Amino acid sequence: MRKISVFLLLFSFLINVSVIRADEGMWTYDNPPLKQWKERYNFEPSQEWLDHIRLASVKVEGASGSFVSPDGLIITNHHVASGQLAKLSTKENDLIKNGFYARTQAEELKTPDMEVNMLVSYENVTERVQNAVKPGATDAEASRQRRAEISKIEKESTEKTGLKSDVISFYNGGEYWLYRNKKYTDVRVVFAPEEQIAFFGGDYDNFVYPRYCLDVTFLRVYENGKPVKVDHYLKWSESGPKDGEFVIASGYPGSTARLLTVAQLAYQRDVGNPLQKQVWTSRQKALEEYAKRGAEQDRQSNGTIRSLTNALKRLTGQQDGLMNPRMFAKKVQEEQELKEGLAKKPDLAKEYAPAWKQISDAYAKLPAMSKRMSFSTLTPSRLGSIASSLVRYSDEITKPGAERYPEFADTRLEAFKANLLSPAPIYPEMEEAALTAWLEEGVKMLGRNDPFITAALGEADVSEVVKRAVNETKLKDPAARKALLDGGAETIKNSTDPMISLARRVEPVIRELRKWNEEKIQNVESRAGEKIAKARFAVYGRTIPPDANSNLRLTYGNVKGYEEDTTLVPYKTTFFGLYDRAESFNDEFPFNVPPRYREMRDKLDLSTPFNFAYSADTIGGMSGSPVINRNGEFTGINFDSNNQKLSNRYWYIEEEEGSRAVAVHSAGILEALRKLYGAGTLAKELTGK
Amino acid sequence: MRKISVFLLLFSFLINVSVIRADEGMWTYDNPPLKQWKERYNFEPSQEWLDHIRLASVKVEGASGSFVSPDGLIITNHHVASGQLAKLSTKENDLIKNGFYARTQAEELKTPDMEVNMLVSYENVTERVQNAVKPGATDAEASRQRRAEISKIEKESTEKTGLKSDVISFYNGGEYWLYRNKKYTDVRVVFAPEEQIAFFGGDYDNFVYPRYCLDVTFLRVYENGKPVKVDHYLKWSESGPKDGEFVIASGYPGSTARLLTVAQLAYQRDVGNPLQKQVWTSRQKALEEYAKRGAEQDRQSNGTIRSLTNALKRLTGQQDGLMNPRMFAKKVQEEQELKEGLAKKPDLAKEYAPAWKQISDAYAKLPAMSKRMSFSTLTPSRLGSIASSLVRYSDEITKPGAERYPEFADTRLEAFKANLLSPAPIYPEMEEAALTAWLEEGVKMLGRNDPFITAALGEADVSEVVKRAVNETKLKDPAARKALLDGGAETIKNSTDPMISLARRVEPVIRELRKWNEEKIQNVESRAGEKIAKARFAVYGRTIPPDANSNLRLTYGNVKGYEEDTTLVPYKTTFFGLYDRAESFNDEFPFNVPPRYREMRDKLDLSTPFNFAYSADTIGGMSGSPVINRNGEFTGINFDSNNQKLSNRYWYIEEEEGSRAVAVHSAGILEALRKLYGAGTLAKELTGK
Repeated sequence: MRKISVFLLLFSFLINVSVIRADEGMWTYDNPPLKQWKERYNFEPSQEWLDHIRLASVKVEGASGSFVSPDGLIITNHHVASGQLAKLSTKENDLIKNGFYARTQAEELKTPDMEVNMLVSYENVTERVQNAVKPGATDAEASRQRRAEISKIEKESTEKTGLKSDVISFYNGGEYWLYRNKKYTDVRVVFAPEEQIAFFGGDYDNFVYPRYCLDVTFLRVYENGKPVKVDHYLKWSESGPKDGEFVIASGYPGSTARLLTVAQLAYQRDVGNPLQKQVWTSRQKALEEYAKRGAEQDRQSNGTIRSLTNALKRLTGQQDGLMNPRMFAKKVQEEQELKEGLAKKPDLAKEYAPAWKQISDAYAKLPAMSKRMSFSTLTPSRLGSIASSLVRYSDEITKPGAERYPEFADTRLEAFKANLLSPAPIYPEMEEAALTAWLEEGVKMLGRNDPFITAALGEADVSEVVKRAVNETKLKDPAARKALLDGGAETIKNSTDPMISLARRVEPVIRELRKWNEEKIQNVESRAGEKIAKARFAVYGRTIPPDANSNLRLTYGNVKGYEEDTTLVPYKTTFFGLYDRAESFNDEFPFNVPPRYREMRDKLDLSTPFNFAYSADTIGGMSGSPVINRNGEFTGINFDSNNQKLSNRYWYIEEEEGSRAVAVHSAGILEALRKLYGAGTLAKELTGK
Repeated sequence: MRKISVFLLLFSFLINVSVIRADEGMWTYDNPPLKQWKERYNFEPSQEWLDHIRLASVKVEGASGSFVSPDGLIITNHHVASGQLAKLSTKENDLIKNGFYARTQAEELKTPDMEVNMLVSYENVTERVQNAVKPGATDAEASRQRRAEISKIEKESTEKTGLKSDVISFYNGGEYWLYRNKKYTDVRVVFAPEEQIAFFGGDYDNFVYPRYCLDVTFLRVYENGKPVKVDHYLKWSESGPKDGEFVIASGYPGSTARLLTVAQLAYQRDVGNPLQKQVWTSRQKALEEYAKRGAEQDRQSNGTIRSLTNALKRLTGQQDGLMNPRMFAKKVQEEQELKEGLAKKPDLAKEYAPAWKQISDAYAKLPAMSKRMSFSTLTPSRLGSIASSLVRYSDEITKPGAERYPEFADTRLEAFKANLLSPAPIYPEMEEAALTAWLEEGVKMLGRNDPFITAALGEADVSEVVKRAVNETKLKDPAARKALLDGGAETIKNSTDPMISLARRVEPVIRELRKWNEEKIQNVESRAGEKIAKARFAVYGRTIPPDANSNLRLTYGNVKGYEEDTTLVPYKTTFFGLYDRAESFNDEFPFNVPPRYREMRDKLDLSTPFNFAYSADTIGGMSGSPVINRNGEFTGINFDSNNQKLSNRYWYIEEEEGSRAVAVHSAGILEALRKLYGAGTLAKELTGK
């Protein structure tokens, strides 16, 4: 996509590809890259330092945030909080468009269903989980035995500590850890800027740097109606990071696939990603059509369209990476080296070496089923998703906890219910448009005789089925959902609600596909993945971090610019640049600034840094991660990465190739709060000034 | 180099590649693209309009400029005038670094040897030149016969009109035109900004857009000690161009190679360009080493280093284009289509069709000689160049005018002498460094036994020969050169000046190589080129403009931004952006602004447009061209193009690929003159205000 110097091209074939490269890795807190930090950055944090950062880091809306005051104040990205902001918005007061600032705590707005989690402790339970598998167990039996043990561990911990306890698999099952989280459910909005400045440049500038976005939202966590007092919060750096400064980001990277085998990657490249693109494109188009109906429809669908557009742009970048022969060849080489390293340990090789073929054999069967698995679902409609959840719940809840689908395990039921009963508004007109388009796409892709389509439609038209289901369902009302849930399995089974009925008709097809996928793919993957993980430990030790899996990680690098084509891209941007980009496009959308930015421009020190680029290894989910200097201070908030970085789902992209994470600068945030938003009180809470 | 959309990829194979594409072409004034203008832009200029623009356009320092006041005021680029500014500079007053502004006409600084030419009239002399070739003439005879006729035409015209008269070949000899120029030799500097703002971003931002450069210099033309009064000058547009506005640029594009055959292009790609790159890189390195010796050495060599760096960056872009298989394939297809079109006219085909093979046969011999032709010269040293010119002059001047090398034709002698006698300073230390490095590179490339090397060095070391030649030569003094010139051929032949002696020793080798090149390559090219040109006329008519050849052309397009990677690049930049880029790099070189830009920043309206991008078909030499709106007003001055455009030496790059010319905006120039330079008088001369 961009010009890569011949130097890099050569370089990539000279190094040992299995060695961790500079600034590579999203590391778990139990295994931080102390050696690299010491050697490269002369940085030797104490355990207290690490604990402090961990306890100041939070998970919010599947992404990241951090405590920045002793009074439970959290900063995250606007695009992380925007789902909640949308739910709090009305036709009359659009918080997304207008922003929000609570001048006093009394004005802070309670979010309908936001959760904040903080990782309190963790414990290695690998042996317990792996030993639960009886010798001679089949893949399916092994999977069940592991799951039962995991449920037991989680339950014991929850009962003992009262904390949210999850056993998490790392290294494709090479390790299992018990993570205990403190959960907060009363989360209020303190400050959000206008979306137009949070997302300045819109989809065009998404995954682009230089950048000019105030992508921040401040929230406050309450308990018992009062702001929580926290011991661990990040002090605010008023000057922010300097060029070349060493920084750490702490957050919740969603998912990487760097330990996948070549067979798994080739499947993504040839089947998985193209299909996913089709699914998202179809959904995006349907909503874009819907948005054209009017301003209110546009407002309703805006958030989902934005997510889909963002996901598609990311997917395109990832796929570009997979399609890059130079990068793919590196992956092939990496696998080859691991196999060769393993071959030098014959006794281990005997057990582990067949794993690659087991995976490639399993994946050989996958393409034939992929299309059905992608399109046999009602989730593109929120009502369809709720109905499917209820139907599935009614089937699962009657089983013993350990035998249920994992999402219905005893420890997860509370979260399941909270999500199901969320009072967030549902827009029937949008539901109808989305579900109609989705099922029409399904008919096109799967054919009228496909089991899912037949179950969903019978002899009827898509529009007929959807109209009735959306118009007549009671599920729009949280109280109706609660009644069904409280009524229990039988009540749900007997419901004549047409959306539930639709979900019930398709449920056997979905279950059958899920069963096929678990047995033929996931169980094999999991068992073989564990072997490959053990092979990797045997050859390289524990020097490679596990793939990201939405759990807390540490990542690090330098604040720095890069070369692009023939020129230099600077490490930071300033408010000057915001106004240049706006004026250069004659202040036209999506490059227009909100009114206050025009009216109060003269108040700003335009040379204040606004955004910056840094070389840490990040990925989606790290949105909202604090960027921390060696003094443990908050210097900025991660919110995006540039184009060059997109394929780092599959491999680490060297910083020499211009791959950068992008953050909002701590000084820029203060400047905007003080000069443009009259939010001196908030700035004072952050800085003490 | 950049991502090209699949759409374009497909598109490029669907269109008929021989048809002129939107906004393509650098057109001669005798054949402006009236049809395209009318159809696409509803623009129908009168002949008066065209004459007016032509007479307001000037050639200066091999590049372009225009009259912008009735009092002989000219605007060109800083980088066009900088050679003269350097010659006017001293250790104590560095005009390049500090800039210059003459508050009154009395303060205007006379340039040592600048020439300004204005195209007064032109006349088609194709028949006369082509008919001068006798039937049955060999290539060499034909060449001599044409040259003799050309000399005759030029002499007649000069005698008749007193104007500088040149017969110029277009379409590789398909047409010949007599161009008559009014020449001005008293040119004075009125205003030049600091190089740091004229060339903000330095080599990094060269051939890059968005851009922030005040690349302008104002000159005034005098005759008889008084500013000349001109009827034709461009009115200054205070608002400049709008997004999407139609504009025309009028200037002197240096050289394109779009009508070359595939064989000629393949030679450039495989041999010519790589060798040229080596020559320039070697020269650049030598001067960079020299510049490290101190501030004064840095100042002396700065201009040449800048030229070489610029040339190398351009060459790299051109070569990237040739190496692009998609683009090269288009060229192959274009040639194929022309051949097929010709085949439909059998009588013409019989005469013209063999031309392609004649060229490819000739070019097959070229690679073996290329290295010798590139390195057998003394021109990288100014003293070496002067000495070679004198030696060559002494040989040629004794022949009848028509038999001399063209640069010594009677009509060219005056220019030759003016150049030779220029009082511009010569820096012996730099001369020694450059010539030593050059000859050492020659030894490395050609070997110690090569005829040129043997002639230059005999048994001696490079350093020995160069030291003596540079230290003892009198040629540093213009008076000494004049004495030799005035003394005539014999005086030069008898000179014992060691630099002349060096030049005399190598001259036979240079002559032999030149003869080989003329006979084996140029004459064939010229004869076959004429045939291909005629074939092209026969197939397409006169709808394709001739290759650029440093003569006046019209080119046109829209002011507009473009897509790059996944985002948009705006049509203009503002002063906000200048300060953003400076501050983003902590005001560090080459992204620092001159002191006045920091001190007087608050005076500026930062939203004033500074630079802009437009889609006209330009190339080197168009530097300084006025960008004119349909009212004939000056809206900006061309100074560069972006990366995407570099390979347009070989083919037109569609505007959809993001290829753009880059200009300084007329409003930005005024803003800087008035607010930063206190040059209200000059601004008033431009605007009347």
